[in-house]
Amino acid sequence: MNISPLQEARYKYEPKLPEILKNAVDAIKVSLGDPTQSVADQEELKQLFPNTYGMPVAGFTKGENPGAGKAINVGVILSGGQAPGGHNVIAGLYDGLKKGNKNSKLIGFLGGPSGLTSDEALEFSDEYMDRYRNTGGFDIIGSGRTKLETEEQFDTCIEVCKKRNISALVIIGGDDSNTNAAVLAEYFQQKKASIQVIGVPKTIDGDLKNEHIETSFGFDTATKTYSELIGNIERDANSAKKYWHFIKLMGRSASHIALECALQTRPNVAIISEEVEEKKQTLDQVVGNIIDTIVTRAEKGENFGVVLVPEGLIEFIPEMKTLIGELNDLLAEHQAYYATLNTFEDQSEWINKNLSRESSYVFSSLPNNIQRQLLMDRDPHGNVQVSRIETEKLLIEIIEDRLREMKTEGRYSGKFSHQHHFFGYEGRCAFPSNFDADYCYSLGFNAFVLIANGLTGYMSSVKNLSKPASEWIAGGIPVTMMMNLEQRHGKKKPVIRKALVELDGKPFKAFAAERETWAVETSFAYPGAIQYYGPDEVCNQPTMTLKIEHK
Amino acid sequence: MNISPLQEARYKYEPKLPEILKNAVDAIKVSLGDPTQSVADQEELKQLFPNTYGMPVAGFTKGENPGAGKAINVGVILSGGQAPGGHNVIAGLYDGLKKGNKNSKLIGFLGGPSGLTSDEALEFSDEYMDRYRNTGGFDIIGSGRTKLETEEQFDTCIEVCKKRNISALVIIGGDDSNTNAAVLAEYFQQKKASIQVIGVPKTIDGDLKNEHIETSFGFDTATKTYSELIGNIERDANSAKKYWHFIKLMGRSASHIALECALQTRPNVAIISEEVEEKKQTLDQVVGNIIDTIVTRAEKGENFGVVLVPEGLIEFIPEMKTLIGELNDLLAEHQAYYATLNTFEDQSEWINKNLSRESSYVFSSLPNNIQRQLLMDRDPHGNVQVSRIETEKLLIEIIEDRLREMKTEGRYSGKFSHQHHFFGYEGRCAFPSNFDADYCYSLGFNAFVLIANGLTGYMSSVKNLSKPASEWIAGGIPVTMMMNLEQRHGKKKPVIRKALVELDGKPFKAFAAERETWAVETSFAYPGAIQYYGPDEVCNQPTMTLKIEHK
Repeated sequence: MNISPLQEARYKYEPKLPEILKNAVDAIKVSLGDPTQSVADQEELKQLFPNTYGMPVAGFTKGENPGAGKAINVGVILSGGQAPGGHNVIAGLYDGLKKGNKNSKLIGFLGGPSGLTSDEALEFSDEYMDRYRNTGGFDIIGSGRTKLETEEQFDTCIEVCKKRNISALVIIGGDDSNTNAAVLAEYFQQKKASIQVIGVPKTIDGDLKNEHIETSFGFDTATKTYSELIGNIERDANSAKKYWHFIKLMGRSASHIALECALQTRPNVAIISEEVEEKKQTLDQVVGNIIDTIVTRAEKGENFGVVLVPEGLIEFIPEMKTLIGELNDLLAEHQAYYATLNTFEDQSEWINKNLSRESSYVFSSLPNNIQRQLLMDRDPHGNVQVSRIETEKLLIEIIEDRLREMKTEGRYSGKFSHQHHFFGYEGRCAFPSNFDADYCYSLGFNAFVLIANGLTGYMSSVKNLSKPASEWIAGGIPVTMMMNLEQRHGKKKPVIRKALVELDGKPFKAFAAERETWAVETSFAYPGAIQYYGPDEVCNQPTMTLKIEHK
Repeated sequence: MNISPLQEARYKYEPKLPEILKNAVDAIKVSLGDPTQSVADQEELKQLFPNTYGMPVAGFTKGENPGAGKAINVGVILSGGQAPGGHNVIAGLYDGLKKGNKNSKLIGFLGGPSGLTSDEALEFSDEYMDRYRNTGGFDIIGSGRTKLETEEQFDTCIEVCKKRNISALVIIGGDDSNTNAAVLAEYFQQKKASIQVIGVPKTIDGDLKNEHIETSFGFDTATKTYSELIGNIERDANSAKKYWHFIKLMGRSASHIALECALQTRPNVAIISEEVEEKKQTLDQVVGNIIDTIVTRAEKGENFGVVLVPEGLIEFIPEMKTLIGELNDLLAEHQAYYATLNTFEDQSEWINKNLSRESSYVFSSLPNNIQRQLLMDRDPHGNVQVSRIETEKLLIEIIEDRLREMKTEGRYSGKFSHQHHFFGYEGRCAFPSNFDADYCYSLGFNAFVLIANGLTGYMSSVKNLSKPASEWIAGGIPVTMMMNLEQRHGKKKPVIRKALVELDGKPFKAFAAERETWAVETSFAYPGAIQYYGPDEVCNQPTMTLKIEHK
């Protein structure tokens, strides 16, 4: 391993913990509140989780917990996409466990949940752990997207844990993985398997949050990295004064990333998918809003700007969602016939005849190469691969066409040159910001304390995050409390409710209050690279979203 | 202006200067060496620059220079693409000027060289200057790409300078702009205009360097920013273990950026255009090398990796260069007829018939949409727009085809999923690293000291950069010394010789010595974000290129 100077330096960083977690682990006692309810579908969920539904919120106080010193084996899994700080969750868990009893063991299952069912694992040592402290990535044990859903898998989990004498599992993942953690906890209880399960809220998308989980880890570092790049591009745009930059940001289901980045960088336009959906905007309207800004700025001689586009936008535009649905149905139903159509012309002609009138109109109005993407890039099930659609280019092409038209009509006399960017992979494995390094370490340490207090089916929770770490509040939230039932593949399934951007929430309102100025005046802000050292206000600030939400 | 916490903090940073420049400006005296020669074409250049050819290298010593305290007006111009640190060159120049005499004035011409000929300018004040210290971008006065080349322009420059009582111009730009600065200096001498001209070496590309100019400013910050992102992507690749990432890096004529980033991040493959050209590699061979790596890694179960691709690659592949040349000639010659061909099929058929046998073969073997780009995206002169060709996608498409073939033949059994990225605009306007902040401030301050010592036709030079700033050596290099004659648009023109990557240079050798290991073993290094604070080894290091070159 070749170690960069920053990595070497970060090894020495000591993450901050909430006050209560600084005590000896056998001096931290759980304090339980009243029974809880799920956010919806209480009766159904109660039946699905007879053993773990309704458990109380857990807090910690100083007090004796003699059991915390017992030597135990704990298993840990990283699940799903990378998020900065995963290594620190494991470091916190490891340190807590060893603080409890130095003979305790932490077993890391390799390559995600599949490592548990196939029993591929490593045992952590001090030396191994030290090579990953305060670093980005999930390379410490790897991650994977296998879902633990079937009873067969659950039984294998029990077997593997028994064999390895593991009495608790920590699952680090997003909403889906934490849902599965809760199902697993329930199953283990039902089978009296004596294996506790604790979840840890991870996702750069920021959509795993609620009253009790203020933010998922990784969101802070990822949005700071994207904002660094957006700010740099804004400054370039404002220096060269010749390009409109369209920047697509990772995140398919929610626009928290786009919103946070907009608050940090004050671009001319930031599209928020949830607003597009709520206002039932057409593609035409979405484009129209951008064009208005381009034209107004052109009138002031400013033929440059920055537009933020959330990756999942297209699925939030009602007419596009309908079109994609119809295409999927058509192509699935007439797969055999469709396969005989060899040219794009034949395909699109046939498609156009078979779409609904509305969708046919929408399809025809799309640029040619987007039509191609919709018809040609399909997944093995025949579905349109929405993530392959280059939304930023789609917008650019339509805008170009429209401006050309307006120019001939004398309604626009500017110059529209453009660049496009997509930021996603750049931010998922950055060295965690001090915030994420501290938060993740605390979540991991906290997960151990929950285990040491005998809890299962809980999510590790650290709150009051807009304050300094010393004021953070550690505890546990029963996962069932965040659940409701949702339709998935035709079945009602218990899932953690995804947190979308709320249009009446404070962060969106803060954005909405300023965006009209940002659209026209050049109001760019340049956050610069994440700093791990330096003045407090530079290196120890949480996201704007968190600050605004908890002001 | 909304100021980010980092920007606020950076305002307070005090850039470091070489020891000699810390003296009172009237206590810094120039010391001149022997007459110099240009790197080539000495006789011709002597005739082209009768007044400024052969001037000695200038150094500084302690000694009296009473003229330095005179109140003067100096003009400054930013020319060409953005590079981090431009604002600090101006800050250093401003501070030097004001240290000489607080009644001296610094005039910034707006929007690049055209601001000088159209006399659009602002006068710097302390307050205005302070808003830009240690920040990225060229937004302080804007930049532009107008070239100062004609006598008419030169005469206008004289007029504007006379009107504003400007006795010296500082031109901050790349090789072309510095060449023009030298031509301007010569012209002013010839016309006895009493206007000095000093150039400052700028370009993120790193191709403006030689024995006397160790590096151009901006290269350090830009490559650190790109390396941050490459490292993050490498760590993501190594965590998810499912993608090959193809990363194109800005820089059309030289591969210094790709080489520096490779040294910092140790990717599996880094293509160096100069090597491709020198070894006369075909597109087939370039692709073949990457495929070898992919296949070897796949055999070890590692279906992931990172490939760095320099933006200008395609023009360094001899057969592609020939093809593009032929296409340009054909399309220019038969413009009228070609315009009657409406479909891509007709166009490519006609093209194929008219290309040389070799080029026809190369053209036919290209993926369809690259053929389209070559035929359709042409500039107003009918030339192929090489910069529009998505080289990273071209490579991916050919590799995909080839691997599919190898799979059916049983020679490859891996999985090839891919992502592509292009980094350019992300790094040109970052907050300058401490190195660039110090270097640029020193270059600017130094430019004033050269002016105060009556020099013209010199480039501001700060050497010994691999050492701490206190050991840096300030001075001036006559621009003619770096020149030779080159063919440009059919004419022999005096230009500063571009520095390409030298295959027998130390940085390339250091890379070449390790790349076979990097190709197969996962040897990624993760530099992380640029740090402006923290331990010295984290925040005060020059580039690897500079360190290796001056070891």
